[in-house]
Amino acid sequence: MAQYPIITLLTDFGISDPYVGIMKGIIEDISPNSRIIDLTHLIPPQNVRAGALALERSYKYFPAGTIHLAVIDSGVGSNRHALVMRAEHYLFVGPDNGLFSFVIQRAKEKDKKFKVYKLENPRYRLEPVSPIFHGRELFAPAAAYLAAGAAVEEFGEVIPNPVILGMPVPEPSSGGWMGEVWAIDHFGSLETNLDSKLLFGCNPKMIKIRIKGKIIDHWVSTFSEGNPGELVALVNSADRLTICMVNGNAASVLGAGMGTPVELILNG
Amino acid sequence: MAQYPIITLLTDFGISDPYVGIMKGIIEDISPNSRIIDLTHLIPPQNVRAGALALERSYKYFPAGTIHLAVIDSGVGSNRHALVMRAEHYLFVGPDNGLFSFVIQRAKEKDKKFKVYKLENPRYRLEPVSPIFHGRELFAPAAAYLAAGAAVEEFGEVIPNPVILGMPVPEPSSGGWMGEVWAIDHFGSLETNLDSKLLFGCNPKMIKIRIKGKIIDHWVSTFSEGNPGELVALVNSADRLTICMVNGNAASVLGAGMGTPVELILNG
Amino acid sequence: MAQYPIITLLTDFGISDPYVGIMKGIIEDISPNSRIIDLTHLIPPQNVRAGALALERSYKYFPAGTIHLAVIDSGVGSNRHALVMRAEHYLFVGPDNGLFSFVIQRAKEKDKKFKVYKLENPRYRLEPVSPIFHGRELFAPAAAYLAAGAAVEEFGEVIPNPVILGMPVPEPSSGGWMGEVWAIDHFGSLETNLDSKLLFGCNPKMIKIRIKGKIIDHWVSTFSEGNPGELVALVNSADRLTICMVNGNAASVLGAGMGTPVELILNG
Repeated sequence: MAQYPIITLLTDFGISDPYVGIMKGIIEDISPNSRIIDLTHLIPPQNVRAGALALERSYKYFPAGTIHLAVIDSGVGSNRHALVMRAEHYLFVGPDNGLFSFVIQRAKEKDKKFKVYKLENPRYRLEPVSPIFHGRELFAPAAAYLAAGAAVEEFGEVIPNPVILGMPVPEPSSGGWMGEVWAIDHFGSLETNLDSKLLFGCNPKMIKIRIKGKIIDHWVSTFSEGNPGELVALVNSADRLTICMVNGNAASVLGAGMGTPVELILNG
Repeated sequence: MAQYPIITLLTDFGISDPYVGIMKGIIEDISPNSRIIDLTHLIPPQNVRAGALALERSYKYFPAGTIHLAVIDSGVGSNRHALVMRAEHYLFVGPDNGLFSFVIQRAKEKDKKFKVYKLENPRYRLEPVSPIFHGRELFAPAAAYLAAGAAVEEFGEVIPNPVILGMPVPEPSSGGWMGEVWAIDHFGSLETNLDSKLLFGCNPKMIKIRIKGKIIDHWVSTFSEGNPGELVALVNSADRLTICMVNGNAASVLGAGMGTPVELILNG
Repeated sequence: MAQYPIITLLTDFGISDPYVGIMKGIIEDISPNSRIIDLTHLIPPQNVRAGALALERSYKYFPAGTIHLAVIDSGVGSNRHALVMRAEHYLFVGPDNGLFSFVIQRAKEKDKKFKVYKLENPRYRLEPVSPIFHGRELFAPAAAYLAAGAAVEEFGEVIPNPVILGMPVPEPSSGGWMGEVWAIDHFGSLETNLDSKLLFGCNPKMIKIRIKGKIIDHWVSTFSEGNPGELVALVNSADRLTICMVNGNAASVLGAGMGTPVELILNG
């Protein structure tokens, strides 16, 4: 546990408006000892899946006790719940729309008693709650009150079945598995939904990837094993097959985007 | 009052250069106990009005005593003044070019004795002051000295008539009021200069908005009242009529930008 | 020296992924008392020279003792070294690929005993070190351990010849000097590799700049000496000739980019 509570922020609010700054102002007002760290605010608008993936790969690098506040909230004002929960050594606040799917699934596997709570206690919000910006009056205050010591159980009733996103699952193909690109990073690396477990027991020299009509068969563990401008395949730190261009941008060179089909050819 | 002074930053410096980081380094050097929060650095270059609007909607969400440092400064090196002032429970530092118009107007209404001071005391700057980057040697040090306890009266003489921006005012039209888009956010929401006061006494069911040849007559209080992809109208938290697309980008779909005419039809 | 150690971050990681946030989480875990300030994360991918220039113009504005962590690392996983060093009143961590060229050159001039150390002590990293993201397990921990009090000598052996970038050098031309644009900022200002020393002894009224077929002969010390939309020349705070458009974007108006030739005409 750090000497002060850490609150991370992950949103689709962008950085051209003062929305994120406003949330920080509210947090500072309620919990002046906390420290706020941005994960990213450039999740594509309303893309809950992209937010879930970004959160999955980052939350565990923070000190125990860190509060992860995530807001991608196209359902604001609907009857979707707001949630708060404790999972592994962390606390989480945000909408119950699937944004925490990976965290919840992992927590349920590890702990039979794992629970998600509704964020409904009026003590822990700013009234009146705007019907269009819950980050401001609902989620930011909740994170700040958690930082100030409130327990998740105080926030509301248990949500028995929190929303879990349906994620695209690889399908068997004639030569192996058919998957897709589901995340693209700043460097144009293409992360697929093809888990490295699909490779177990296969001869690494025989495995190829087909994307946009191109075959990639150079598997590397680090970029310097390839040549500048070469397309290579690797298993990234989330254990997923990823297509990269050494010192280049695979997404733009291949013309690939979210959902581009990727075939894993095991017996090529 | 927080346990340490908070300094917010709002600029048009962008985030690709280290300009903002440099200002933070200087603040840390002078006032190591302060805490710095970014509002935004992506105000369109030299767009003082956009900066004034962004500041207006955010400054009051911070703890009392917060110092708001704002720099959109196309007149750097000219004879425009630099200013420092205390308004409501906040302190402000920046150029006297209209960036603080809304704050000054509100402060004058509330307090007959409200005063704006020149930032001219050499004790509170770094010498020599660069003629092209006042954020560095002038504004950042001033904010840091305020954080360290300097009083606004120590910075210089009173500026009797600080600059107030001329803002576009709605004009009466045959059917109601003619206004314009004056702010667009990351989600493509179009905020207009049509204040919700213009609606007082009107029958809400009769009110429509015309923009880019399209009529919008679905008024909502939250996005979930509309259907995905639908254009809706709402009154935002700044009490201004705003045109949004549910789970979409109204600005790009309508081809609307800053200054696009918007008619409020009261008797349609 | 500040009351707590400051760590600055300069990378080409962008801000759409949580990579930077992850590094901050690791730093907080190891050194909870440090304070983290972003310089920029939008150095063009793999552009070590742009990173070196950005670092050069910012590092000295921070309190003594500040740790500057910079990662532009296309050679990750190769046999390039990772380095740590103390120069002037600052500490530096990053890859040994030329990113610290200016700092190292200046340090060597000032101090014959200046040394650069390999970052190889396993005590100061997280194991296992990912072969594709050294920022996470190698550089961020090193910076955090420096903040926590580790001495540079503890990190590893001396690197006798740290990498120094070859920088483009102005060439004599018939009328003066031929240089190039080597940095472009958010406002479209074009910094050249033409040092102000090249002007010594020349008649300022005779000096012109030629870029993209246009002649610029209005030298200013501040933008307000020019008219809006006018191209002007000035010596920036890094003592380099810079071409700007008053209240406009010189880069886009001239169609100039990195490497665009710029002639300094001394006897025009």
